[in-house]
Amino acid sequence: MLRIGMLTSGGDCQALNAAMRGVVKGVCSTRDDVEIYGFRDGYKGLIYGNFDMLTAKNFSGILTRGGTILGTSRQPFKLMRVPDANGLDKVSAMKHTFNKLSLDCLVILGGNGTHKTANLLREEGLNIITLPKTIDNDLWGTDMTFGFQSAVDIATDTIDRIHTTATSHSRVFIIEIMGHKVGHVTLNAGIAGGADVILIPEIPYNIDAITAVIQKRTVVSKPFTILAVAEGAVSREDAKLKKKEYREKVSKRKYPSVAYELAEQIQQKTDKEVRITVPGHTQRGGSPCACDRVIATRVGAAAAELILKQEYGYMIGIKNGETAKIPLQNVAGKLKTVDPDCSLIQEARRIGISFGDEI
Amino acid sequence: MLRIGMLTSGGDCQALNAAMRGVVKGVCSTRDDVEIYGFRDGYKGLIYGNFDMLTAKNFSGILTRGGTILGTSRQPFKLMRVPDANGLDKVSAMKHTFNKLSLDCLVILGGNGTHKTANLLREEGLNIITLPKTIDNDLWGTDMTFGFQSAVDIATDTIDRIHTTATSHSRVFIIEIMGHKVGHVTLNAGIAGGADVILIPEIPYNIDAITAVIQKRTVVSKPFTILAVAEGAVSREDAKLKKKEYREKVSKRKYPSVAYELAEQIQQKTDKEVRITVPGHTQRGGSPCACDRVIATRVGAAAAELILKQEYGYMIGIKNGETAKIPLQNVAGKLKTVDPDCSLIQEARRIGISFGDEI
Amino acid sequence: MLRIGMLTSGGDCQALNAAMRGVVKGVCSTRDDVEIYGFRDGYKGLIYGNFDMLTAKNFSGILTRGGTILGTSRQPFKLMRVPDANGLDKVSAMKHTFNKLSLDCLVILGGNGTHKTANLLREEGLNIITLPKTIDNDLWGTDMTFGFQSAVDIATDTIDRIHTTATSHSRVFIIEIMGHKVGHVTLNAGIAGGADVILIPEIPYNIDAITAVIQKRTVVSKPFTILAVAEGAVSREDAKLKKKEYREKVSKRKYPSVAYELAEQIQQKTDKEVRITVPGHTQRGGSPCACDRVIATRVGAAAAELILKQEYGYMIGIKNGETAKIPLQNVAGKLKTVDPDCSLIQEARRIGISFGDEI
Amino acid sequence: MLRIGMLTSGGDCQALNAAMRGVVKGVCSTRDDVEIYGFRDGYKGLIYGNFDMLTAKNFSGILTRGGTILGTSRQPFKLMRVPDANGLDKVSAMKHTFNKLSLDCLVILGGNGTHKTANLLREEGLNIITLPKTIDNDLWGTDMTFGFQSAVDIATDTIDRIHTTATSHSRVFIIEIMGHKVGHVTLNAGIAGGADVILIPEIPYNIDAITAVIQKRTVVSKPFTILAVAEGAVSREDAKLKKKEYREKVSKRKYPSVAYELAEQIQQKTDKEVRITVPGHTQRGGSPCACDRVIATRVGAAAAELILKQEYGYMIGIKNGETAKIPLQNVAGKLKTVDPDCSLIQEARRIGISFGDEI
Repeated sequence: MLRIGMLTSGGDCQALNAAMRGVVKGVCSTRDDVEIYGFRDGYKGLIYGNFDMLTAKNFSGILTRGGTILGTSRQPFKLMRVPDANGLDKVSAMKHTFNKLSLDCLVILGGNGTHKTANLLREEGLNIITLPKTIDNDLWGTDMTFGFQSAVDIATDTIDRIHTTATSHSRVFIIEIMGHKVGHVTLNAGIAGGADVILIPEIPYNIDAITAVIQKRTVVSKPFTILAVAEGAVSREDAKLKKKEYREKVSKRKYPSVAYELAEQIQQKTDKEVRITVPGHTQRGGSPCACDRVIATRVGAAAAELILKQEYGYMIGIKNGETAKIPLQNVAGKLKTVDPDCSLIQEARRIGISFGDEI
Repeated sequence: MLRIGMLTSGGDCQALNAAMRGVVKGVCSTRDDVEIYGFRDGYKGLIYGNFDMLTAKNFSGILTRGGTILGTSRQPFKLMRVPDANGLDKVSAMKHTFNKLSLDCLVILGGNGTHKTANLLREEGLNIITLPKTIDNDLWGTDMTFGFQSAVDIATDTIDRIHTTATSHSRVFIIEIMGHKVGHVTLNAGIAGGADVILIPEIPYNIDAITAVIQKRTVVSKPFTILAVAEGAVSREDAKLKKKEYREKVSKRKYPSVAYELAEQIQQKTDKEVRITVPGHTQRGGSPCACDRVIATRVGAAAAELILKQEYGYMIGIKNGETAKIPLQNVAGKLKTVDPDCSLIQEARRIGISFGDEI
Repeated sequence: MLRIGMLTSGGDCQALNAAMRGVVKGVCSTRDDVEIYGFRDGYKGLIYGNFDMLTAKNFSGILTRGGTILGTSRQPFKLMRVPDANGLDKVSAMKHTFNKLSLDCLVILGGNGTHKTANLLREEGLNIITLPKTIDNDLWGTDMTFGFQSAVDIATDTIDRIHTTATSHSRVFIIEIMGHKVGHVTLNAGIAGGADVILIPEIPYNIDAITAVIQKRTVVSKPFTILAVAEGAVSREDAKLKKKEYREKVSKRKYPSVAYELAEQIQQKTDKEVRITVPGHTQRGGSPCACDRVIATRVGAAAAELILKQEYGYMIGIKNGETAKIPLQNVAGKLKTVDPDCSLIQEARRIGISFGDEI
Repeated sequence: MLRIGMLTSGGDCQALNAAMRGVVKGVCSTRDDVEIYGFRDGYKGLIYGNFDMLTAKNFSGILTRGGTILGTSRQPFKLMRVPDANGLDKVSAMKHTFNKLSLDCLVILGGNGTHKTANLLREEGLNIITLPKTIDNDLWGTDMTFGFQSAVDIATDTIDRIHTTATSHSRVFIIEIMGHKVGHVTLNAGIAGGADVILIPEIPYNIDAITAVIQKRTVVSKPFTILAVAEGAVSREDAKLKKKEYREKVSKRKYPSVAYELAEQIQQKTDKEVRITVPGHTQRGGSPCACDRVIATRVGAAAAELILKQEYGYMIGIKNGETAKIPLQNVAGKLKTVDPDCSLIQEARRIGISFGDEI
């Protein structure tokens, strides 16, 4: 008997179901003595022993469905060793569940935070395999995560729709795109949507550089400007602050996000109407795009291969178009940010896109 | 020679270009001595004599394009008689442009505000034909306006995407849908998207009725709830205020919109995480849906028919599936709101949708 | 106890699941003693007593899903009274199943053929309510059927995509759209997609009128032409044949469909490359559009209302924007075709669309 | 003065306009003395000196538009040296046009055939830069071509829609996907769409292996089967034929394509209804997906960089996520096929997808 535990943790994204389907189909195409324990709502299900017994049938027909059939929740890494209200040590609880169910391995789908905990469980001796789930594409060790391209598609679609309104009304439009720490989604959607200005956390902006773009466009009879702005975009001044100082400043900000602050500054410095659009959680939802379904299926199938070979302690990623296994300890705690000098940024600058840092 | 002026006014929406194409193709399929004066940015172009000379070719290939090739702007009706900074009386200026160019007629595409001004120009003796453009579907005298179904499609797509996240995280989600005065878009998108609660301006809500729905769902193992909320949704208490009092209250509100206020109330009264999504201007943008293209083409073609017959003073609408001409004076200044007792509302209630007024 | 049978019959289409969800939610919001018998694969399930016992839960989360959770099949009306291989009289068998299960009523979702059998069952004394399902929109007694607008959307999307190829290559493109007997889908998608020529069964075409359009366009520097052609489009000569003669002629035709015949004729008479696209069954598949979800939900909810009132023998349709009950005997055996003189056709002609009958 | 010629050749695809926009924006962001000669309809325009003088403005707003604003045509490589009806040597004619206009370089967007001619022109001493355009992704020297991901998206969407019909009717569905010589699109769309069988030119199929899959699925209560079949899929027997023999056999085939032959064989060997869907040219049309827009913009910008540096004789491709320049002589005449042993195929087999070669 092969006993596989499975859980999805952190913010949901597209193709979680596709990836789990890949694992289960991959294992069950060879073995017919498989038991699957689906833990409810992420690590919470593992901690409290809350799970469903599932079969291959439960994973049939879910390739195209958004969300996760297991549910998910955010369980901060830093609280993992902290006993809860009932004095329960969460790590011990998870080990207990794993051993009580005699699991052969645990497949964990998640992003950065999730991987830190996954590595912790590995260090505790559990057999762990992880799959790189995040719209942010910021997991170290893989070229691509599933969820990313779907989020880019949705953010691009938003910019496309706004484009027609912007041109008809001669307005400045700010589209706030998901990404608190990294700008991969904003960068790609900004280029794909034809944004004039792209602001990402990795390249602090100067408000004067932005208004210069707007004014220059007006002069050449392009009275509208589109800004693709990551949630975590930051001004040069704020980038110089210490982390704690910045957090304090943000908490006192009267605006819900940086986009609103930018809008006010632009409105004051130019004579333009500024509008803000926040696609928000739609960027995580709905049916995954074809690209994400292929990636998710691939890493799922490759995980199945490892399970059958009893090789544990890896994240399955994509390197140069091939699936690859990356030791969990190499992934945990690292962030793959946008390199400000990468060729994608240079190409964007080449066609005249501003990153708000030209002056 | 047939001289036709054309302008698009108010907020942009889908199928404006499709409708203008219908007018121009309709006229030019019979007459080859047509001059088209496209006024820039709505009434502003007519006031200041800012226009482009256009031909049938300019209207070719624009059927599927969002926005308006003429540009648009909002020109409040109440300021039409008020001289501007240079002492210019706008109505006289518009008449002057019309007469100076010896226009046979002026085709105006717009919503409620636009129609008030259009009727004013008719009263001043100008030959006017209008087309019903608005995502709100709130123009009196027509069953359907173009833009409406496209907006419903986009709002529905937003709800669809949120659905997967809501179910995965057991959250309450509020989707704020366009509509300050009327709830047609919210009502239709809410039903199409499977919302559990629909709040529209025409049916004031009671916060306790809403939290009762959320709690009842949790009891039957549906720990998530989707609320489709019109921008102009209003609580019972606020609905009792006088217009001026309400405006004052809103201006002092610390939240950008009613959705945020609701979110806080729900979070306080239940133990649920609440998230807000505001598709905003995306609801007006992008390629029109097939239904809107057909409506826009039909009313455009019917307008051409009237122009060729020299019949003026009408809006072209859709009544019981046929194009119909409605005297402008009957349209101007009236609003087509959602009847709280209409069969659509009753059917929604029948399947268990709450309008927040059950208690 | 309220015992409801349910089945979907004929070709599948979008929003079947949405409509069934409407019925079940509508009934279960008032009654909690409901048993639902879902017959498998249309009338076949009723004939052979093949069904699943379902609850409200089975109908949750299916609003957006294409196809039918009950399965469907085509059971020709003319064979209903003919005993099968085992000597089984199908009508008696269906009555037997109905009575054996003590059903209060049977809800049938289907198109024209389905309604003939439904009416037969009504005549036999069974309590029947039907819902108008068909992409063809050809059911008598209702303005709209669910499935129609989704099919129009998909066919329009096909024309949109072909447009870019047609303009880039200066080709003639024929898009063959579903509709053997009626042209509603082709007419609407043709207008929405900007087709130059629309051919529907109701207006027999003259090949010379079509080539005249192509040549006239080439002269005015539009070297491409788009034809939206219904499966059942017919030439003037063929329209004169008796039904039997025509069927014989078609069976001997070397082409799979009329589109291929047209393509060869056009290629011979002009110097143009002609390409054919057949979206085929994609027009019936996938998630229903917002408009169809609303219609399906409405007629489902209205059916629930009738069930609760024990009023039977009706199809629920949409008349002038409201749900309406139409006696089954008035619906069965009638076809709602496109009136060649209707205002939609006139408006299409006004903007220069050819129906292939101008010469 | 910098004089740039530009042409698009071969079948059209998505993101051609996006790529040209990238080149022009890239050059014009640095130089303001640029003249752009847009040759009409591919090499034809270069041969006959048929071009438009274009400016940066002509390339604004075309990022999202399908097709090519320059038009395209197929000009077989093998005829390039063959004088035409008027005794014109095409290669000399193209050189003549290039020199007469004093072009600094010629940017050519195309696929395999196009690249052979492009390399020929390079050998003749012209300054050439090419961009890899093809939905087939079969250009040697680049990991990705633009057009590919959009085609995969559309083919996947087709499979998705067919899925609902297939499950509702218990049918076998064949979706014929573009690709005469290579199976990249079919392979990716097949995996993304959840096909049960994928047939590509690189892996000859055995009809018995296919029917075995269908029968095995029926046994486990999955009475429908989806086959994603490339246009160039070939049976084991046919794969053994010499090229000429095979062509002869195909020409005598009574079916329009391999899908129809397969359908008949399956229908005979199983008791299943089989249906065929051919999305055809829709796979090349419409707005490019976000991924293709980014690729097209990148290679366009990188081409601009080379032009400004006066480096010629390269195709710009994508290698390991970065733009790269590949000498034209290395690209011309080579085909990048699917390696039957690649990890993507192995992963597909791992989850139980059949390639029709298991027996």
